[in-house]
Amino acid sequence: MPLSEFQLIARYFESLAPASPEHGVVLGIGDDAAILQLPPGEDLLVSIDTLVSGVHFPPTLSPRAIGHRALAVNLSDLAAMGARPLWFTLALTLPDANEAWLAAFAEGLGTLARSSGIALVGGDTTRGPLSITIQVHGAVARGTALRRDGARPGDDLWVTGRPGLSALGLRRLQAGVPDEDPACAVFVWPEPRLAFGRALVGLATAAIDVSDGLLADAGHIAERSGCAIEIEATRLPLAEGLAALGREDALALCLAGGDDYELCFTAPPSAAPSVDAAAARLGLPCRRIGRVTEGHGARCAGYSPPTTGFQHFGGSTDA
Amino acid sequence: MPLSEFQLIARYFESLAPASPEHGVVLGIGDDAAILQLPPGEDLLVSIDTLVSGVHFPPTLSPRAIGHRALAVNLSDLAAMGARPLWFTLALTLPDANEAWLAAFAEGLGTLARSSGIALVGGDTTRGPLSITIQVHGAVARGTALRRDGARPGDDLWVTGRPGLSALGLRRLQAGVPDEDPACAVFVWPEPRLAFGRALVGLATAAIDVSDGLLADAGHIAERSGCAIEIEATRLPLAEGLAALGREDALALCLAGGDDYELCFTAPPSAAPSVDAAAARLGLPCRRIGRVTEGHGARCAGYSPPTTGFQHFGGSTDA
Repeated sequence: MPLSEFQLIARYFESLAPASPEHGVVLGIGDDAAILQLPPGEDLLVSIDTLVSGVHFPPTLSPRAIGHRALAVNLSDLAAMGARPLWFTLALTLPDANEAWLAAFAEGLGTLARSSGIALVGGDTTRGPLSITIQVHGAVARGTALRRDGARPGDDLWVTGRPGLSALGLRRLQAGVPDEDPACAVFVWPEPRLAFGRALVGLATAAIDVSDGLLADAGHIAERSGCAIEIEATRLPLAEGLAALGREDALALCLAGGDDYELCFTAPPSAAPSVDAAAARLGLPCRRIGRVTEGHGARCAGYSPPTTGFQHFGGSTDA
Repeated sequence: MPLSEFQLIARYFESLAPASPEHGVVLGIGDDAAILQLPPGEDLLVSIDTLVSGVHFPPTLSPRAIGHRALAVNLSDLAAMGARPLWFTLALTLPDANEAWLAAFAEGLGTLARSSGIALVGGDTTRGPLSITIQVHGAVARGTALRRDGARPGDDLWVTGRPGLSALGLRRLQAGVPDEDPACAVFVWPEPRLAFGRALVGLATAAIDVSDGLLADAGHIAERSGCAIEIEATRLPLAEGLAALGREDALALCLAGGDDYELCFTAPPSAAPSVDAAAARLGLPCRRIGRVTEGHGARCAGYSPPTTGFQHFGGSTDA
């Protein structure tokens, strides 16, 4: 008798679900709801994101990379809040129960889940066009979460990593470059900046993860904080592959490429030595790229965004 | 300048998101994650479910009914745990931003959200084939959640409402009967049994909501509790519309129709007067339909499930 599709799917995800008391999981997968215990004195952080094949990733992306990506983009939201990951739920819609696909997807998802210390506590599997929705849950000490609305004139603007490299990688992938290429690898295997986000608690005044593009995401901080943000083009940390392009193309990828999953944040100048120390300790490049001023909007002298805007329906009304 | 699709969508859902301190919502929609505070001494309950058009509801279902249904089936999971609803997140995948569709969907969703006292705290909107994923969050006093694994030999088995009526309604809808028909209305507007679920805390030993079908869901209790469940066909609360069908068809709809979103639960015989009193107080029919015994599996003498089984991929690996 063939294994039912349900059993098949459940099997792949069992190993991701250590329903252990240490995780605060009283009851995990297998009932109408999971029963969870939040550590006393902590705030709960939740964020949900959907990835649709052909919208959020190329249909040719490997199932292992899709599994990684689906969790990584959600963990990146927790990183931007300075939160410690606790639990996630997975709503998976699949055209069919392809065993090889599921095994690879679960491996990509599970490897990142284990290294991030996040437990799968619930799920739903549905037949339909491929899409993956994950909700992540994290915790921070009460009142210490990093938000978008705390930037103040006089603060510095910072960014981690090499924004634009991911967009360059996507461009190369679409041109048929194999995903071992370093830029391609940045797109295919985004690394949520969890440890760095936690290190920013008490240092940063506002933070966001760079998914829509550096300029647009800095704009979200400006809007929520009621101030302006000026990015200095000469300070942008252009990766080698970007610097080799023409200046205009390099700036566009760096400022508007998106899918970077780096952290963009503001902090008072007095915090700069501590930010540098955290970056050095975690081995993550982190650069001051601008400042917060009176006014509104985010801009970068020498760069004009296309008038049609980058806003695309495939993006998200994040929360 | 036309309103951007994002603003359009955000507008419809703003009214559902009362980010009030009474709800424990420190920060709702608009940041990388929502910041939430769970009442001290309570357990957190979470459940996620996806509805795909053409799989979980007929593509002809009205957007108002789809909005209601997407939240109702999730609230039903909280009802089955005896939980008080707190917050929900919405991941909506849409082929396009049709304003009339969104307004009606938000109305159906919002009406049920307000009457259930649940606040929208986060979301994601994506372009793609229509599907709706909702995660609900609820709370119960620590250690009091109703689970599937507490049934004991000697307990009675109970069910609320009129299982099978929803499946009859779906059959009629598919035959072109208008949705004012009472059976159709039961399918189109499922009512999560939240108040009754809370009343069962301290009375029921195990509970589940009836989504896969009464016999299959009783089977889930039996499996998790390590015992057997015997349903007595003569005790089944057949609705008028069902009783009018032949006995075999009526039994099949009642025991395996699914989509009922009634509560099926076990309780010791000593709890029967309290269960009856709660049912009378809440005006919800509730009937003893069988009992828990030693052994395994759930069965109903006089009814044989089709050998191919009802397990369908469109269902869920619930959690």
